[in-house]
Amino acid sequence: MSRLKIVVVGGGFGGLNAVASLRKCNVDITLIDRRNFHLFQPLLYQVATGGLSPANIASPLRSILSRQKNALVLLGEVTGFDIPNKQILIQETRVPFDILIVAAGSQTSYLGHPEWEKLAPGLKSIEDATEIRRRVLTAFETAEKLGDNNKYPSLMTFVIVGGGPTGVELAGAISELAHTTLRNDFRNINPEHTRIILVEGHEYLLPNMPVKLSENAKASLQKMKVEVLNKHRVQEIHSDHVLLENSLTHEKHRIDTNNIIWAAGVHGAPIGEKLAKDLGITLDRGGRIPVQNDCTIAGHPDIFVIGDLAAMTNEVGKPLPGVAQVAMQQGHYVAQKIRAKVDQKSFDPPFHYFDKGNMATIGRAKAVVDMHWIQFSGWFAWVAWLFVHITYLIQFQNRILVMSQWAWNYFTRNRSARLITGDAAQHPQLIAQLSEKTDPLADSQAKNQ
Amino acid sequence: MSRLKIVVVGGGFGGLNAVASLRKCNVDITLIDRRNFHLFQPLLYQVATGGLSPANIASPLRSILSRQKNALVLLGEVTGFDIPNKQILIQETRVPFDILIVAAGSQTSYLGHPEWEKLAPGLKSIEDATEIRRRVLTAFETAEKLGDNNKYPSLMTFVIVGGGPTGVELAGAISELAHTTLRNDFRNINPEHTRIILVEGHEYLLPNMPVKLSENAKASLQKMKVEVLNKHRVQEIHSDHVLLENSLTHEKHRIDTNNIIWAAGVHGAPIGEKLAKDLGITLDRGGRIPVQNDCTIAGHPDIFVIGDLAAMTNEVGKPLPGVAQVAMQQGHYVAQKIRAKVDQKSFDPPFHYFDKGNMATIGRAKAVVDMHWIQFSGWFAWVAWLFVHITYLIQFQNRILVMSQWAWNYFTRNRSARLITGDAAQHPQLIAQLSEKTDPLADSQAKNQ
Repeated sequence: MSRLKIVVVGGGFGGLNAVASLRKCNVDITLIDRRNFHLFQPLLYQVATGGLSPANIASPLRSILSRQKNALVLLGEVTGFDIPNKQILIQETRVPFDILIVAAGSQTSYLGHPEWEKLAPGLKSIEDATEIRRRVLTAFETAEKLGDNNKYPSLMTFVIVGGGPTGVELAGAISELAHTTLRNDFRNINPEHTRIILVEGHEYLLPNMPVKLSENAKASLQKMKVEVLNKHRVQEIHSDHVLLENSLTHEKHRIDTNNIIWAAGVHGAPIGEKLAKDLGITLDRGGRIPVQNDCTIAGHPDIFVIGDLAAMTNEVGKPLPGVAQVAMQQGHYVAQKIRAKVDQKSFDPPFHYFDKGNMATIGRAKAVVDMHWIQFSGWFAWVAWLFVHITYLIQFQNRILVMSQWAWNYFTRNRSARLITGDAAQHPQLIAQLSEKTDPLADSQAKNQ
Repeated sequence: MSRLKIVVVGGGFGGLNAVASLRKCNVDITLIDRRNFHLFQPLLYQVATGGLSPANIASPLRSILSRQKNALVLLGEVTGFDIPNKQILIQETRVPFDILIVAAGSQTSYLGHPEWEKLAPGLKSIEDATEIRRRVLTAFETAEKLGDNNKYPSLMTFVIVGGGPTGVELAGAISELAHTTLRNDFRNINPEHTRIILVEGHEYLLPNMPVKLSENAKASLQKMKVEVLNKHRVQEIHSDHVLLENSLTHEKHRIDTNNIIWAAGVHGAPIGEKLAKDLGITLDRGGRIPVQNDCTIAGHPDIFVIGDLAAMTNEVGKPLPGVAQVAMQQGHYVAQKIRAKVDQKSFDPPFHYFDKGNMATIGRAKAVVDMHWIQFSGWFAWVAWLFVHITYLIQFQNRILVMSQWAWNYFTRNRSARLITGDAAQHPQLIAQLSEKTDPLADSQAKNQ
């Protein structure tokens, strides 16, 4: 019998764990990814705020799998499926499979408002992170150039939509950036006047966490001068303002801002749509593919969907969250099933998600940790958060680099990866908007004389 | 008397040294740069080959000048000069000056062939470096996807045009990447079959170095499987080949390649043209502004030009090279002149360039060093090269990060910043070119069975 051909789509937490768990298995694995690296998404907010470099949280897939000789990595975007012939398509290239594992992840969802994407970038990729970094830093640069920041408060107002872990972490990091890192860096503006507003539709931040921790997180953010607006929904997004609505009173609330970041939701990767169409199944509301309790699609025992793209419920019917833990455990589970098949053994237990808990960091030396049997927050929670994140980083070198930069940033309150890169050095929304003649020197030089 | 207004255009080695040398001077300085960071260009080739991250060799200008209260940093592109009114223009913004220091640097020059820019990127900016990194890595990825590399030798052929320090360093680093770092990473291709060709018009590589060191460098590169073509000039560049001409025999020589990197020359920054036009002076052949021996433009004692944009000769009429040392010393010299003026003292010595020597690295533990009174090469030269480069890096954190990554790369032969980023994950020149159907798995899986 020839070796089973396993094709894995996506080198995130789910796909990579599936491949690695098949290391010693007598199969041929092809891992397909659009990118040549595994991205450690939980630390993406640090790239977006200049604390870490992209390469610190990204590891080349080839490098990770260099010694795993049964794994072939292909860089490419899956463009379709040929299910009857058991092949997947990367443009003209056809890759045959016996077993398919789809772990394509999720992308930012604008809740039916695709036009908001350009105005309010999300945070899912390296490019997203460097774009947010560019916008945040350029806002301060533009304010400095235009002079007195009282004239342009919208430039120094940051609105973050979504109070989950990403929103909370971004709000905390931007507050640190503005109130400590950049404190002495400007002459015409005072970065301490920066407004940071975190908008969440739910009654509490971090809705998946116990209320006590949500309240702790909110109090910590407020101490860091972040304004937290719970029970508010975004109605409109424009280049110079957002319109919010209080979900109880339906009062409207306009905030003038040039800086809007979207952290309010995700949606299954678009490849899920293609697969669902080919198989004649219906995606769930979040664009995810419904799977059975063994991670397969009903009627397709050779097609597994894992991670953010899979819609699965636990034993009591509650949907599993779109977090790295679920994806990793599913990857490992699917590999077990495949190993059993190769060994012609039976392995029939359903997938069981072991929820180790949740954590979110708020800022320098502040975090909240929920391990179910114990909840805690503050400095010790931050150390636990740091320990877990560094442990799960894929490569040893990255662990060293992240730790050393973190130690440096912790003690100096500096963030040295504050680069504005990309083609446009200007704030994209401002070029048209602001064209008055100004003398940026008037203020600072008056002070110096 | 009100404080003198000093405007410095460009935060490279020249401009930043001028600003820093005026730290304790009773003047108002405005430093204008298109980018928000100082870039340590000598290590850019490491970013282009995945050894270092952009932020490791870039320091935010604001961070560097944070404590220098007499300096204001403005992010923007100088769009013109109003010399009669002593103002410079950043779009609509006018910045008045009493003394102007233009240190805008240089850009890649294609020697009258601007159409080559898209086909053969140069290496002057962070974006250039990540673009070269993307192209180099994507070439290997595409070859792996298409299968047997014998079918597509042009994908794995790299032609570097220009045998100065940048070309030599790039050739060495790409050789290391292909022959050691990536050695085990592919299944369908063998990266050791990579061809790296370094083309230099001159009889020797590193034309500014003593012949003995040039010969050493060439021998070292050849040991690393780099083919060195001296006395060859580029006649044509196409997306799939270059046409070279032997400058002695005029024989033509075609090389099939999808990967061409341009390291063959620089030209003064375009802002130099505007300034020359406004002042009615003529640029030299390299697009540089002729300056007097005190770094001023003749007839304009308040306008200094320093660094790569200045055309200056030494005491015996030899043009000063476009290197960091010259720019730094000129920056310091101009600051001395300004300090003397503020103190109403006289300071009339002409600028004297103290040439400490030249060095270039070839690869892992190999370099050549010319200190005029002594020349050496090999491991000790590499340590000297490393020491000098780490010393001149601007920020302490960057020194630590670069050193630790270098140590890591040295011992593991890894290069972890091998990220393909940017919009196009595909090799730009290949999409149209290669559209055959292939089965990338055939080869590797035949081997495994």
